[in-house]
Amino acid sequence: MLSRLPKSSVLQQARSVSSIATAEPNGPSVKTAIPGPKSKELRAQMDKVHQTTSVRFHVDYEKSFGNYMVDADGNSFLDLYTQISSLPLGYNHPDLVKVASAPHLITSLVSRPALGSFPRTDFADGISNALTSVAPKGLKAVQTMLCGSSANENAIKTAFIWYQAQRRGGKGPSAEDLASCMEQKKPGTPTLSVMGFQGAFHGRTLCMLSVTRSKGIHKVDIPAFDWPIAKFPRYRYPLDQNKEYNDAQDKECLKDVEEKIAEWKRKDNDVAAIIVEPIQSEGGDHYGSPQFFQGLQDITKKNGIVFIVDEVQTGGGGTGALWAHEHWNLSSPPDIVTFSKKLLTGGYFYSEHLRIKEAYRIYNTWMGDPTKLMLLEKAIEVIKRDGLIEQSKTVGDYFQKKLAELQKTHNTKLDQARGRGTFAAVDFPTAQLRDKFVDAAIANGLHCGGCGEKTLRFRPSLVYTKKHADLTFDLLDKTLKQI
Amino acid sequence: MLSRLPKSSVLQQARSVSSIATAEPNGPSVKTAIPGPKSKELRAQMDKVHQTTSVRFHVDYEKSFGNYMVDADGNSFLDLYTQISSLPLGYNHPDLVKVASAPHLITSLVSRPALGSFPRTDFADGISNALTSVAPKGLKAVQTMLCGSSANENAIKTAFIWYQAQRRGGKGPSAEDLASCMEQKKPGTPTLSVMGFQGAFHGRTLCMLSVTRSKGIHKVDIPAFDWPIAKFPRYRYPLDQNKEYNDAQDKECLKDVEEKIAEWKRKDNDVAAIIVEPIQSEGGDHYGSPQFFQGLQDITKKNGIVFIVDEVQTGGGGTGALWAHEHWNLSSPPDIVTFSKKLLTGGYFYSEHLRIKEAYRIYNTWMGDPTKLMLLEKAIEVIKRDGLIEQSKTVGDYFQKKLAELQKTHNTKLDQARGRGTFAAVDFPTAQLRDKFVDAAIANGLHCGGCGEKTLRFRPSLVYTKKHADLTFDLLDKTLKQI
Repeated sequence: MLSRLPKSSVLQQARSVSSIATAEPNGPSVKTAIPGPKSKELRAQMDKVHQTTSVRFHVDYEKSFGNYMVDADGNSFLDLYTQISSLPLGYNHPDLVKVASAPHLITSLVSRPALGSFPRTDFADGISNALTSVAPKGLKAVQTMLCGSSANENAIKTAFIWYQAQRRGGKGPSAEDLASCMEQKKPGTPTLSVMGFQGAFHGRTLCMLSVTRSKGIHKVDIPAFDWPIAKFPRYRYPLDQNKEYNDAQDKECLKDVEEKIAEWKRKDNDVAAIIVEPIQSEGGDHYGSPQFFQGLQDITKKNGIVFIVDEVQTGGGGTGALWAHEHWNLSSPPDIVTFSKKLLTGGYFYSEHLRIKEAYRIYNTWMGDPTKLMLLEKAIEVIKRDGLIEQSKTVGDYFQKKLAELQKTHNTKLDQARGRGTFAAVDFPTAQLRDKFVDAAIANGLHCGGCGEKTLRFRPSLVYTKKHADLTFDLLDKTLKQI
Repeated sequence: MLSRLPKSSVLQQARSVSSIATAEPNGPSVKTAIPGPKSKELRAQMDKVHQTTSVRFHVDYEKSFGNYMVDADGNSFLDLYTQISSLPLGYNHPDLVKVASAPHLITSLVSRPALGSFPRTDFADGISNALTSVAPKGLKAVQTMLCGSSANENAIKTAFIWYQAQRRGGKGPSAEDLASCMEQKKPGTPTLSVMGFQGAFHGRTLCMLSVTRSKGIHKVDIPAFDWPIAKFPRYRYPLDQNKEYNDAQDKECLKDVEEKIAEWKRKDNDVAAIIVEPIQSEGGDHYGSPQFFQGLQDITKKNGIVFIVDEVQTGGGGTGALWAHEHWNLSSPPDIVTFSKKLLTGGYFYSEHLRIKEAYRIYNTWMGDPTKLMLLEKAIEVIKRDGLIEQSKTVGDYFQKKLAELQKTHNTKLDQARGRGTFAAVDFPTAQLRDKFVDAAIANGLHCGGCGEKTLRFRPSLVYTKKHADLTFDLLDKTLKQI
């Protein structure tokens, strides 16, 4: 059987790397077309056994460092996309590399626990250090999961379970509930809904697709629950010059939320939860104002609806705060805040009133992955030690100022510059020009990503500094002049 | 902020372990009640920030080795439950420990790729070595995912996408499809169903719960799709003494499958896929015969339905074959085979006709985890090198013989002994006695698990040998005499 293992020179090369990069290059360097010949070769090899339709190019992760990603052909890029906004400290951060070979991390890798039943002796400490220490104000309880979709799925399950318990006067399920649900009939299997928003993205499982409205290609051909989708604000920028229009957006959207809640109630399909992103990212970097989110929370409180804030993309410091919803000045915390990506582990914080009393209701084999929790524990230590949230705010303010200036200089190509911290976006006149720009930028050594219809988004990691921002704007300006 | 990090002696102890266990003890050793005082202390600590309703005890994973799990109090158990059947090579296998600190694994940990867009240079080789080399016969294409639920969710999405493409004569979605799905209306959002079985378990996301019928507590209070659930055989054992009854079970269940397909078609809710476990594990270790599965596949072929075999628990060698469906002698491969647990990474193999042409339809941020693929690559190498599938068959045959003898000796307490390879189960007269047995067994140093209503299941890893089986039956016999 062993003779069936393919021999590959590429594999041997990758595996012979005895050291991992320890410093950033002085700047990007692009020597081939993108994707280069080696990336193309690897893609052809991969396509024989695995889909490759969305592959852009192959990356040499051993050679990548900090803000720089190095591809299979040795090209290096200043990376403002960071694996779809999921690297808190860039590539191969030395503190993370060090912890990766610690015994407790190795045993977690090779002897993976079923955390729900047989947790590691250091699990509670890991939770405290990595998660509780950065919990959103007022939300101490946390549940780990594997990814953003499973975090959102289980947050929604928690909401359903609580909603039904309220209907029973706080009691757990009755014998009739437990029996009827096995036939998927009432009362055990209720008709309940979750409200999402136009332009939202919450994941790609069937449940999450029912509240996701990012793009047709994400949703088409997949059955969906009959769940309401409300309007989400579409502001005009700069904000201070469009106050009247934007305030009207908030009002219109909140009215739509209330109307749809009532409409679904009339259909006997109560809205048990509302799930919302602070910044609709995949959908095109759409922001909501503090007023909008305050109003939304008021509506959930008035109607006994669980308020879920999906911080899968926004959590982790990129907006200049650890949690984007900190910018809203809510009078009380959201009921649930979900996370993944930059937090390395998926999961959700939740209000104590939502804690479930019965065992095995929120459960699965792995319930997360302690290796991710251990890396996060170290990453949080580094973020605090190096003041990276504060840096994200300072560098972010500088970035937003520069982006506004860039838009002024290239006002026929750029519009609606917006952002918070180092989360930033700008619109192009068309999807075609945006795509052309993304391709031209990477040829210049700058990697950023598209989102929505015609938006360019920036998602640097937390080790992105003013020096990197200056280089970014040189490359943006150069690329805009080329297209 | 750093001052908020809790100081804990338990943490310090766990982290000061400088070496990982490298040998099994001669036998189990239990010195405290289970859970012991340290486990109780850790549980109380954990409960402040994380649910603990399903926690049995805390485990010292550094001290665990091979077939032996060591708990927080230093008790060691012969483990036939192996983290819910998810450890292929037991605890801290030296070959896995070695690969865990290799540079390519470290970079995969600390610089986690978005595999769908920016795969590692060694990804295709990893896929070939870890997965393609052990692919079910006839299924070369594979898609990695994070866990069993996400594997099943995406297998089902693949089925829906194919089913709708067939309705369009093989074409991709039209502009009308892409527009209407954004409103969750036909034709873009179809009404389609997936058939599951009574007693099935496929995961706990909302979609998977709609085809899961393991226990009420898994399903209650959660909305579900209107999807059909068919009867699954409930055999009498030993098989050779109950042929007539069991054959009738097969016929009755296949008739039910055909009737429900027709019923849902009349409701304009076509069954696009059937998902089935080779051995219904969570539901109580229920087996289907080769004839049943052959008949089931025939029905799917006749009706143009995608045939999905969920090998999340059975895949990986425990049944004496790498894939349990190998025992069925199908005339052609299943359309999709999903996996996770012992395969370390989640994912699914699929027939080439199901490959999706459009990008970003089966996609998410991480699309699996290369660290798991690298561990699996090494695990597969070890499994082949050490002949562990063959060993699972030989030791399994021995185990089944001993289990039948044990049942004969304790015929008032044990019934319906059954199994395949080292997958084995036996029923108790009541849930109470089964639970009492599980508690008494662990006090004797033997760890096994319950499933279904009153079933005891055995799920040793692939490093379980005849020596361990002999010890197991000594402990089983001793425990049965005590209860």
